[in-house]
Amino acid sequence: MNRIELIDSIKRFLDEDGPGGDLTSEAIFNAHQMGKARFIAKESFIGAGLQMVAGEVFHLCNPAVRCSGVEDGTEIKPNDVIFTADGPVLDLLLAERVALNLVQRMSGIATLTRRFVDRVTPLPVKIVDTRKTTPGLRMLEKYAVRVGGGFNHRFTLSDGILIKDNHIAACGSIEKAVGRVRKQAPHTLKIEVEAETMEQVEECLAAGVDIIMLDNMSPELMRLAVRLVNGKALLEASGGINLENVRTAAETGVNLISIGALTHSAPACDISMELETA
Amino acid sequence: MNRIELIDSIKRFLDEDGPGGDLTSEAIFNAHQMGKARFIAKESFIGAGLQMVAGEVFHLCNPAVRCSGVEDGTEIKPNDVIFTADGPVLDLLLAERVALNLVQRMSGIATLTRRFVDRVTPLPVKIVDTRKTTPGLRMLEKYAVRVGGGFNHRFTLSDGILIKDNHIAACGSIEKAVGRVRKQAPHTLKIEVEAETMEQVEECLAAGVDIIMLDNMSPELMRLAVRLVNGKALLEASGGINLENVRTAAETGVNLISIGALTHSAPACDISMELETA
Amino acid sequence: MNRIELIDSIKRFLDEDGPGGDLTSEAIFNAHQMGKARFIAKESFIGAGLQMVAGEVFHLCNPAVRCSGVEDGTEIKPNDVIFTADGPVLDLLLAERVALNLVQRMSGIATLTRRFVDRVTPLPVKIVDTRKTTPGLRMLEKYAVRVGGGFNHRFTLSDGILIKDNHIAACGSIEKAVGRVRKQAPHTLKIEVEAETMEQVEECLAAGVDIIMLDNMSPELMRLAVRLVNGKALLEASGGINLENVRTAAETGVNLISIGALTHSAPACDISMELETA
Amino acid sequence: MNRIELIDSIKRFLDEDGPGGDLTSEAIFNAHQMGKARFIAKESFIGAGLQMVAGEVFHLCNPAVRCSGVEDGTEIKPNDVIFTADGPVLDLLLAERVALNLVQRMSGIATLTRRFVDRVTPLPVKIVDTRKTTPGLRMLEKYAVRVGGGFNHRFTLSDGILIKDNHIAACGSIEKAVGRVRKQAPHTLKIEVEAETMEQVEECLAAGVDIIMLDNMSPELMRLAVRLVNGKALLEASGGINLENVRTAAETGVNLISIGALTHSAPACDISMELETA
Amino acid sequence: MNRIELIDSIKRFLDEDGPGGDLTSEAIFNAHQMGKARFIAKESFIGAGLQMVAGEVFHLCNPAVRCSGVEDGTEIKPNDVIFTADGPVLDLLLAERVALNLVQRMSGIATLTRRFVDRVTPLPVKIVDTRKTTPGLRMLEKYAVRVGGGFNHRFTLSDGILIKDNHIAACGSIEKAVGRVRKQAPHTLKIEVEAETMEQVEECLAAGVDIIMLDNMSPELMRLAVRLVNGKALLEASGGINLENVRTAAETGVNLISIGALTHSAPACDISMELETA
Amino acid sequence: MNRIELIDSIKRFLDEDGPGGDLTSEAIFNAHQMGKARFIAKESFIGAGLQMVAGEVFHLCNPAVRCSGVEDGTEIKPNDVIFTADGPVLDLLLAERVALNLVQRMSGIATLTRRFVDRVTPLPVKIVDTRKTTPGLRMLEKYAVRVGGGFNHRFTLSDGILIKDNHIAACGSIEKAVGRVRKQAPHTLKIEVEAETMEQVEECLAAGVDIIMLDNMSPELMRLAVRLVNGKALLEASGGINLENVRTAAETGVNLISIGALTHSAPACDISMELETA
Repeated sequence: MNRIELIDSIKRFLDEDGPGGDLTSEAIFNAHQMGKARFIAKESFIGAGLQMVAGEVFHLCNPAVRCSGVEDGTEIKPNDVIFTADGPVLDLLLAERVALNLVQRMSGIATLTRRFVDRVTPLPVKIVDTRKTTPGLRMLEKYAVRVGGGFNHRFTLSDGILIKDNHIAACGSIEKAVGRVRKQAPHTLKIEVEAETMEQVEECLAAGVDIIMLDNMSPELMRLAVRLVNGKALLEASGGINLENVRTAAETGVNLISIGALTHSAPACDISMELETA
Repeated sequence: MNRIELIDSIKRFLDEDGPGGDLTSEAIFNAHQMGKARFIAKESFIGAGLQMVAGEVFHLCNPAVRCSGVEDGTEIKPNDVIFTADGPVLDLLLAERVALNLVQRMSGIATLTRRFVDRVTPLPVKIVDTRKTTPGLRMLEKYAVRVGGGFNHRFTLSDGILIKDNHIAACGSIEKAVGRVRKQAPHTLKIEVEAETMEQVEECLAAGVDIIMLDNMSPELMRLAVRLVNGKALLEASGGINLENVRTAAETGVNLISIGALTHSAPACDISMELETA
Repeated sequence: MNRIELIDSIKRFLDEDGPGGDLTSEAIFNAHQMGKARFIAKESFIGAGLQMVAGEVFHLCNPAVRCSGVEDGTEIKPNDVIFTADGPVLDLLLAERVALNLVQRMSGIATLTRRFVDRVTPLPVKIVDTRKTTPGLRMLEKYAVRVGGGFNHRFTLSDGILIKDNHIAACGSIEKAVGRVRKQAPHTLKIEVEAETMEQVEECLAAGVDIIMLDNMSPELMRLAVRLVNGKALLEASGGINLENVRTAAETGVNLISIGALTHSAPACDISMELETA
Repeated sequence: MNRIELIDSIKRFLDEDGPGGDLTSEAIFNAHQMGKARFIAKESFIGAGLQMVAGEVFHLCNPAVRCSGVEDGTEIKPNDVIFTADGPVLDLLLAERVALNLVQRMSGIATLTRRFVDRVTPLPVKIVDTRKTTPGLRMLEKYAVRVGGGFNHRFTLSDGILIKDNHIAACGSIEKAVGRVRKQAPHTLKIEVEAETMEQVEECLAAGVDIIMLDNMSPELMRLAVRLVNGKALLEASGGINLENVRTAAETGVNLISIGALTHSAPACDISMELETA
Repeated sequence: MNRIELIDSIKRFLDEDGPGGDLTSEAIFNAHQMGKARFIAKESFIGAGLQMVAGEVFHLCNPAVRCSGVEDGTEIKPNDVIFTADGPVLDLLLAERVALNLVQRMSGIATLTRRFVDRVTPLPVKIVDTRKTTPGLRMLEKYAVRVGGGFNHRFTLSDGILIKDNHIAACGSIEKAVGRVRKQAPHTLKIEVEAETMEQVEECLAAGVDIIMLDNMSPELMRLAVRLVNGKALLEASGGINLENVRTAAETGVNLISIGALTHSAPACDISMELETA
Repeated sequence: MNRIELIDSIKRFLDEDGPGGDLTSEAIFNAHQMGKARFIAKESFIGAGLQMVAGEVFHLCNPAVRCSGVEDGTEIKPNDVIFTADGPVLDLLLAERVALNLVQRMSGIATLTRRFVDRVTPLPVKIVDTRKTTPGLRMLEKYAVRVGGGFNHRFTLSDGILIKDNHIAACGSIEKAVGRVRKQAPHTLKIEVEAETMEQVEECLAAGVDIIMLDNMSPELMRLAVRLVNGKALLEASGGINLENVRTAAETGVNLISIGALTHSAPACDISMELETA
């Protein structure tokens, strides 16, 4: 996690939520009133962001606030106290909403990822994310996937090679597309190609690609591909995979299963803040 | 919508997704290759952000791209073409993911809002949002709520007064809390107070507050509150309201129903981009 | 006050005043030379910004500088020492001009506000500011108004409703304008309408507006409006009010008097910095 | 004037005034409603900023707005139309307050400067400003001084040398202070020294300084200094100079008169915007 | 190349060079004076940045300036006109130094890269760069390497895996280090390991790494490594390679040769700007 | 040195080098693993930036890292330990490349400057830099020149006057160009004019300029100019001066010698980082 970028983002989020301070609280509390805030879990989930992220939100409101949160990956049960912050009440209330909005989302992603991971355990397959993240939150969301036991696919268009149908069509063949990319892309990146048919999987093998993405294939086709490829490339299942069918996909023998929903539609976890004034 | 802020945000989102450009596409397409991108709906929903937001994303990748999108609030059907962009292929591919991520989320919020609104039509009640928005996207998410027929609650801690349990406890009574706020807050803002019991509703009335938030009350209590208040303040139902119970809440006669889920857990709409190269 | 924004602003101001450091002082003092700076009042005024604002300026030049300033709202007399800072001489000299420029302006605004407030005491009327603030300094200037005993009108175009002549003309009537606004604006904001005649005041009442701004009305008309409105809306006197006529305006019974000059043309207070080197 | 920095500043100012847009106007006007705005002078003054600054504010709200303003330095009379802008009403109203706040201040500074210049015409003396500018607005305020016929003193601590009492005291003598500075400062900058007595003026001459600032000297002393220096250095009168005594100061023969009040306490000019909707 | 980031960088560079404009030129030219600028080569080199980079610098000073530059990779001869810009003289002079400083550096890098590439042609080896770039200019410098015919190594610590001596020492063996990385790093990235001895090369092979960096090895050892590895991994020669010994290194059969000096110490090309005023 | 700007720059540089952290090291080290980093000199040079700049880089990665570096201007010998940093290994590795890239460049500039200074010692002449600096690094590079014993020419177009051939041509004569500049430029800046012939030197004298830049003149002409000017202006030799001919130029009696190569093509010093883990 890039701490400098994290701090910059949180500053923007705090400014978004309280550009002119908290009018209500400032009318009621003075700057010296101290208090203790507790984040209480309202359901079961995998905690994410309670230390670094929530802590940084409160810290940025006032460096004097002392925070303590559960470790990333902790299994939380209802009514667990998962984070505490001691300091001026005005700063605790200023941080509340931003911290909750972030932590609820991150924990939601970690929890959903863990559910997928649990379904495929102990098969030798990795659950990976996609670029379908919330704009502005990619670093935090991909971090939450790792907390949940998942793995990250490329972060950006600039740190991974993925040749899709448009690229192939524009070149005329997988072989030509791979050739052009090999001539220009950094040698440090593997080359991944999207395949929709078994013929394309064969073309991929012939072109010596590192990873083949099996796009929306049936379990039968995936199994065929696994046999055909026989370890000469990594195989990534992609498209339409959910908690119901992920085990079946995993059992085909693919190496990776990528799931947009991890970051795209993980429901937020229910957490509330209780405040005790001194 | 603040256009200057919108552009700043989109620049950050584009930088997040392609800090060093699109390595794959740049190896395959040259800068002069033109194309046409189409956003295709994969399900039914209420479109939001197709003109200003998606258009700005493509425009920022290259001011020469020409865009056209459906109006905000349009009812979309599966396979509808809801947005087109003509320009250099490299710029279309650079804009794709950021534009889709934003528009799918905004349309999701508009669609969920519309569903709530439809449930309570034609009762004289407004569906309103909360501050439970995605950090960094509040402006866009609150806009999407309006597109769906909902209304916005306060945007920030600085442009609305909401006296909650902590504030009341710290002052000793609703009367005292309201008194302190009135002494200091801008006269342009209404005063809203959270009430958990009928006694508190009465205290609110006695204190002359403008809006009373009925926190997690049963329909029976809400109905009682409506009768008690009798138009002397706005009544806002809040807490635990979903598509199943929203009609019942609306029928109690409250003026407003606020729902965190509008922005918090609206599922993203399914939209894909098709590309045709010239 | 938003501390994150305050720090960002002061960084910009320091960069504006010393982009490449202080060439003169750096040629004369070394980095280890310590000193003590004192801000000395050269006239009587109400102090504002001596703690948080001046302190932050010196702190940003060097976190090791220790500062102490009088509380906001203190009545200062000539020759009073109102702020001290101990630390490296180079940092004290770097902070000097920015801190003085800010504090002189803020104190000037607090002082002028206090003079208006004193004129109308003990009448039940509030002195309020406007949006005629110095671009970039609104938060600090509105804060200074509060220090002087005044109140803030809306901060921005986004956190208050004010229907003016143009809006009314475009709609055809006050009733229609209010109707359109009510349909769309957040329910948390009061609706204020500008009235130039007694007929318009009546229209406002009929439309149920919350605040009526009496635009450039004579004391006689204001008195008439107070009687007519009779507590059913707040009345705000606006336009052409100065220290000479503010008492007369207040005695008409209006609730609020808004004065652009508070932030627009408050003369800066005379303060100088004395430096003692160790 | 640095156009890139100007645009950055104006963006911040617009964001300060309308972070979430103009709630009132957006409820009343649609995005297609066109109009024409006119800035009308309410008094006599020297216009400043009507072309580049006001124009840029409106342009940033919407690049399609067409603007036209009087040249910098124009003598304005009451009721003159000094600026017009044609475009969407919503954008005209969004730009109004920021543009007026800037232009009223800049014109105020140009006008006050011109009054000082007129008083000393045709004597061979320059009216110059100081670093006592509004934080964040130095570039615009120093520009306005030039529009009024004045000249700029150093912009920052980094582009001019000014040895003051503290520096002299720390070194033991003017000679030593000048010596240290000469060893280190860029050769492109003149060396200016503050002198409070005739002995110090002599020391300055002996040290070969380029400019001597006569700090709070009486006209008699200034005249003496002029005779003593006899063209071997520039002489700058500073401290306590106003419209009443500036002529007397000028007649002593000094080369420059610096006046903090030019930027510090120039009253804003009275300008209002009229809007005509199509 | 990321155009949004490029523009942001150039704005900062222009602000660095002319924060308050060009005092000299503004005293001499008025804003309407038009002219034509020409960049003239003073020596032979490979041109880089003349279109996009130089063009953007002038464009940012004034969008109305029309520019034309030679294509990246063009072989320039002394006295060639490699770039022209038509527009207001003041803007041409404002852009001059920043544009030249960038283009001279980029062309220097492209030229040095080309010299290395020419030395190894037609051997099947790639000349690649490192992270030893000028802070703030990595994107432009890596682009210039590609213009010269070289290839890019990883851009950042976040988009490539390179296991060095410290990492190996901390884990106890190459095998363990590779194991830990494989468990956590994105599957899209190849794994590169630094080897200093033939034993380490063997360990790398055993661990199945994708790329082996031969650190400061003699040509004899490199040849040995090539034979040993026999195509089962890419081999990258690194350390102490210059124009004199690069051919020898290439002839050993390694796949890649990385050279810090490409970006680190490429001498700037000599280019000057001539200005013709209309 | 402007510390606020320094920190902003370093944050950008760190973000450029590790936008998503250090993938390799994060897979191998945990956050608690402590270590000690040492910068080791690989050759002889003048150290620059080891305290403030390198220290700030490590400090920004983690405020808890403790650093110690040699003073600016220290003469370094091969194998000297010139900087140490104690703290978490992950932060040491994150800071490494940015710190080295900056310090190697700054020390290179200081070293080259010192070599020029040594060549002309003890003649009364100053070695000065130019605006031919790396975009984004001017503050640091000009600082390094001072560390090496050189002096700074103007920092920007805004803090010095330099009338060049284009300016003269546009005005018709040096006299007219100087006249125009004198009418408008701040009186705190000296006026420098570029002269290519002895006639122009005479014109400069007649116009009373403060500094005459002798552009690409032979030593004979320079000597002639020194005699002609006879102390009535500073003389700056410029163009084509290198370590071979700088002594000859200095012996002509000019006051200043400006050398673009100081910042433009100083070779970077060879420094490496060694890491010891606890």
